[in-house]
Amino acid sequence: MRKDRIEAAQALMAEQGFVGIMIMNHDDLRYFFGKDWSQPRAIIPWKGPPALIAFAAEAPQLRSLYKESEVQIFTHVGEQINDVITHFKQLVMKIGLPPKATGPKVGMQLWFDTPAFLVDLFRKVNPMLELVSSDSVMDELRGVKEPEEFEFLKEAQRIAGLGMDRARELLRPNAKAHDIATEVLYTMMKAGSSGTSTPIHVNFGIDSCMIHGRISEKLLASGDLVVIDLTPQFQGYCANLARTFIMGEANEEMQTLLDTYEDLIKTTKELMKPGAKTSQFDAAGKALCQERGLEDSHISGISHGIGLRFEETPASTIQRTHRNIPIKEDMTLTIGHTILAIPGVGGVRHEDIYRVTKEGGVALYPYPIDPVIV
Amino acid sequence: MRKDRIEAAQALMAEQGFVGIMIMNHDDLRYFFGKDWSQPRAIIPWKGPPALIAFAAEAPQLRSLYKESEVQIFTHVGEQINDVITHFKQLVMKIGLPPKATGPKVGMQLWFDTPAFLVDLFRKVNPMLELVSSDSVMDELRGVKEPEEFEFLKEAQRIAGLGMDRARELLRPNAKAHDIATEVLYTMMKAGSSGTSTPIHVNFGIDSCMIHGRISEKLLASGDLVVIDLTPQFQGYCANLARTFIMGEANEEMQTLLDTYEDLIKTTKELMKPGAKTSQFDAAGKALCQERGLEDSHISGISHGIGLRFEETPASTIQRTHRNIPIKEDMTLTIGHTILAIPGVGGVRHEDIYRVTKEGGVALYPYPIDPVIV
Repeated sequence: MRKDRIEAAQALMAEQGFVGIMIMNHDDLRYFFGKDWSQPRAIIPWKGPPALIAFAAEAPQLRSLYKESEVQIFTHVGEQINDVITHFKQLVMKIGLPPKATGPKVGMQLWFDTPAFLVDLFRKVNPMLELVSSDSVMDELRGVKEPEEFEFLKEAQRIAGLGMDRARELLRPNAKAHDIATEVLYTMMKAGSSGTSTPIHVNFGIDSCMIHGRISEKLLASGDLVVIDLTPQFQGYCANLARTFIMGEANEEMQTLLDTYEDLIKTTKELMKPGAKTSQFDAAGKALCQERGLEDSHISGISHGIGLRFEETPASTIQRTHRNIPIKEDMTLTIGHTILAIPGVGGVRHEDIYRVTKEGGVALYPYPIDPVIV
Repeated sequence: MRKDRIEAAQALMAEQGFVGIMIMNHDDLRYFFGKDWSQPRAIIPWKGPPALIAFAAEAPQLRSLYKESEVQIFTHVGEQINDVITHFKQLVMKIGLPPKATGPKVGMQLWFDTPAFLVDLFRKVNPMLELVSSDSVMDELRGVKEPEEFEFLKEAQRIAGLGMDRARELLRPNAKAHDIATEVLYTMMKAGSSGTSTPIHVNFGIDSCMIHGRISEKLLASGDLVVIDLTPQFQGYCANLARTFIMGEANEEMQTLLDTYEDLIKTTKELMKPGAKTSQFDAAGKALCQERGLEDSHISGISHGIGLRFEETPASTIQRTHRNIPIKEDMTLTIGHTILAIPGVGGVRHEDIYRVTKEGGVALYPYPIDPVIV
């Protein structure tokens, strides 16, 4: 259990007037407890020990892991949401509100893994609690990475690199995208990945235009652009490595896309210093594309935060407000999220994870950009 | 494109006063368009052709797939949600409301893949539209399966069976759960699965108590119960096959769990007739467990609907109201969702997909229950 992180969260909760944070997501659970659990159901109150909510049969295992003074363990019989809500009510009554609270405000991660029906249910059953995003606490804690977190992310990227090596070996005319994805996933899992954050993307030809392509159905042909995007996880940390290949020789338009993308990366890397905003990356990228006559191909959102969650703050393509959040030293962000595509021709992207430093973005695990498949 | 399904949905929308359904999920997209797309963004209005919303570079591909009279294709530049909302407004103004509508009511799938922040954003940007669950339309259409859907589900279960065969081969003392998951996933993908609906669950010993266990960290030991749960997808259809094994000889408590679970399945199968409710399955299961002195081990929710979505209506463990929805002939439901566990000993579950018939549940792809690993 990471008591230091729990205490840091509690200090922020007291300051911001949260009565507690309800954890329903694997990444937050791992962040606070150092390990993942089958069904994440926990409460971090603004003071006192955290609470875990588990099925009765799971409780002995949890009790063997944690001291009773450190963690309260509650069991339930299948009514998870109702039970979490009940425990939350009891908690509010027991510990009261933090001094600065204006009402019983509860934080919860409101992101891709938190479904709307769950939040609607919580709000309906619990009208006296105000449920808001826990980002103002969690981003503050999780944005800047600790030394061990860089190591986990590097290892995740290294595993992605092994997958990309394997993919490159398999690129030949008439290759099937599904077969490549199958071999790549096997390689990455054998290397220690637990799975991937997103489906494996292997896109041939004009399918490479798709911003989040999945698996092409048609066979690989000579002259195709190929976009491969790999997102293996290691100890909960999310890799993100994308490369574009060209099967044979690039035509002029393809070469322009390939060259411009490398310049987009270079420009963004130089801007990736403490205090910068991702809106500045996109403005610079747009200007660069205009110079090259590619203004219609530019899409905003070249960068997003990454860590225990695949898209963390600043998630500029998802939340517009994130585009104006200043980044900090030792945050981890990707460059290469958006595709640069010409309709009918194909698209290009190369994505890696960078660490924000005073000198600009430094790739966590440098992996070659070497597109031409002979 | 499945015009018949679109027309059936439009008839229901007109009847129920929906101005349209916003599709942001892969399963609904596949249901209406016969194929999946990278980012599902579509609108089915209560009358007239459906609309697809895509990035500019993706449009030529879509236009090559569909006739212009059949599908309207809109492109956008990275502001997906805002663009979908804009198109929705235009649509409402253009086609007007259905005669029975009391206001501009919009349907959307509100389930695990629809995040709360998206719905909150939609409601904030679009206060004049009432956003509600599309279940009343979609469940009506999708609950009862068509002949080809049974075939897809059978094939998904067959692939799961190949994965389970592979898992069984690998069960020996000191086996690692992660290695088994790696080989099983490889086997299933080689057999044509695109991936899995949930992480692969391989749980040894007391980890088998966990209702949605993932991957055990400790090695497999003699005398361990092992729960393996596989959910490969085929053409978007979701398999669900779980089996429990015993590494060597079962002790008396384990044998009671194993025997009782088979009886639970038998009892549920017999009840799985048109008009029955899952609450009746659970009541019968509870009574059976009480007879065996296992009342503390019984958890409600042995069955859930399954198809293009892993948990479809009736999803009795997630939505309490679903427990009282009468099932219909030719629906597909699982039996075996809940674990029967004794704390400190282990848990048992065997899960399969059944078709509802007048004679009771019929397994779509019978797979042996053969727990003892010698």
